[in-house]
Amino acid sequence: MISPALLGRARLLAGPEVSETAARGLARATARPVERGTPGDGPYVYVGASLPDAPRGADLVWFHSVNAGTDALLDGGPWPRTALLTRTVGRMGERIAQYVLGWILAECQSVPEYTALHARAEWRRIPGELVAGQTAVVHGIGRIGSAVAARLRACGIRTVGVARTPREPPPGFDALAAPDEPVAARWVVAALPLTAETAGYFGADRFTAMGGATFLNVGRGATVELGALEGALRSGAVGRAVLDVLPDEPAAPGDPCWRLPRTVITSHSSGITADDDIVTDFTACLRELRAGRVPPLTVDTARGY
Amino acid sequence: MISPALLGRARLLAGPEVSETAARGLARATARPVERGTPGDGPYVYVGASLPDAPRGADLVWFHSVNAGTDALLDGGPWPRTALLTRTVGRMGERIAQYVLGWILAECQSVPEYTALHARAEWRRIPGELVAGQTAVVHGIGRIGSAVAARLRACGIRTVGVARTPREPPPGFDALAAPDEPVAARWVVAALPLTAETAGYFGADRFTAMGGATFLNVGRGATVELGALEGALRSGAVGRAVLDVLPDEPAAPGDPCWRLPRTVITSHSSGITADDDIVTDFTACLRELRAGRVPPLTVDTARGY
Repeated sequence: MISPALLGRARLLAGPEVSETAARGLARATARPVERGTPGDGPYVYVGASLPDAPRGADLVWFHSVNAGTDALLDGGPWPRTALLTRTVGRMGERIAQYVLGWILAECQSVPEYTALHARAEWRRIPGELVAGQTAVVHGIGRIGSAVAARLRACGIRTVGVARTPREPPPGFDALAAPDEPVAARWVVAALPLTAETAGYFGADRFTAMGGATFLNVGRGATVELGALEGALRSGAVGRAVLDVLPDEPAAPGDPCWRLPRTVITSHSSGITADDDIVTDFTACLRELRAGRVPPLTVDTARGY
Repeated sequence: MISPALLGRARLLAGPEVSETAARGLARATARPVERGTPGDGPYVYVGASLPDAPRGADLVWFHSVNAGTDALLDGGPWPRTALLTRTVGRMGERIAQYVLGWILAECQSVPEYTALHARAEWRRIPGELVAGQTAVVHGIGRIGSAVAARLRACGIRTVGVARTPREPPPGFDALAAPDEPVAARWVVAALPLTAETAGYFGADRFTAMGGATFLNVGRGATVELGALEGALRSGAVGRAVLDVLPDEPAAPGDPCWRLPRTVITSHSSGITADDDIVTDFTACLRELRAGRVPPLTVDTARGY
């Protein structure tokens, strides 16, 4: 735990990912200037997306990530033992939940099909599909998965979360199922962090069991084996796919992922954090630390989320 | 009011719009056969979309419309004085509400834009727009408008209904406003029936005051002056338009409506009734009539809805 005295002495550094607007907000929250570039003497608090080598030593007391996912950050080498790591979630749960509901309803309302019909000046009725009464399985029952489930449930969708160990369903979920328990579902949502255990989590077995569902990935791209997904799309085991994330990003124009059938890729846009998200979450962490408490946005650097 | 005795004697006729599946459901509900074609002696109960001349006389005791909108039916000549008219709403409120939310979220998530980017194999991030905290004005605060408002409100959208006379907001609405009261809104939803008073309701004045909102029409096409809408789209007073209905339907390929800027037309599909909607609502009316009550789905043939 960082002592309030140490925190009171620390200088505030911001990475290039922090906009001037966000930096002004951080300066207001801490009542000290935001420094850029190579740091002088520590201790430091650093706000950014990645950790440069210079402040990696013992002088770094707290790193606040501008992103929710910290896997890339932790892959950059062993995390400094004494440094607290917190992250920005902001309204990300709400943003991603709206993204998932938006793409689900767009499929039910045939938005791409009507856009194409309109371009051809063709009057044709395509009946809509009602989501009320359908089932969605959500893999990942943390903050994001829970926000997605709550949003879907408000539209009458039955929500089943996937959990390794039996427990009470978290908010937003009607029920929980074990990872390999078969659940008939119209929608399968992936909202998993990337860890050693979730890499390649969606492989041939899981996709084959999906029974024609639409698969939406708002977690991490590397939780999916793209070859297995392609096979399932070709066999019909997966009806459609909406991929916000890919194992390798950004995808080059020649990447085969663009030719997956009945798939749309949305360029990792579902949970873009806004400037005020960063300032709000940093300030919330600061308040907890000053009160001598562990901020709820703290990342367990061993588990990776 | 139809006496239960008269109802017990009446023959059941179904128009060509009633599928075999729906006809079987009607036969089950009434415990009598469903007849097609030219009727023999009355009294009759007729289920269909339009009323043929043959059963138009005093022998028609009850007409159940397979549609929610009955303006076309009532335009076919004076309604037989002694005949009850009821209509199918079914899950139409829910269907139309999901349609409105689906098109709103599709705009916020740039669904057509991502579909086009994907087709070009182009990785580009377009930040989403959060609907929570935005305002929607809904013209038409009946069953449909209320269902739309409730669905939008569940996503955090503030809902303002438009009413001619001050009253308590109906379910789903945060507030009511007078028809010409200015309300800053991101979304304007039209859910009006077509009557003498609502024909051309959306003219130049109303469109000019919309301040760049997206306009969605799920009511009746003739409530909109298309020329005024076109002017507002060109000036930017209306940002985008989603039109499920048009003054003249279906639109021919050469119709200028297809060339309205930033508009999509969805071919009167938002509230397509399903077979079970017809049977469910007919059965509900039958139950009320047998109990000697006026069914809530009764159409006031003078008002037209």
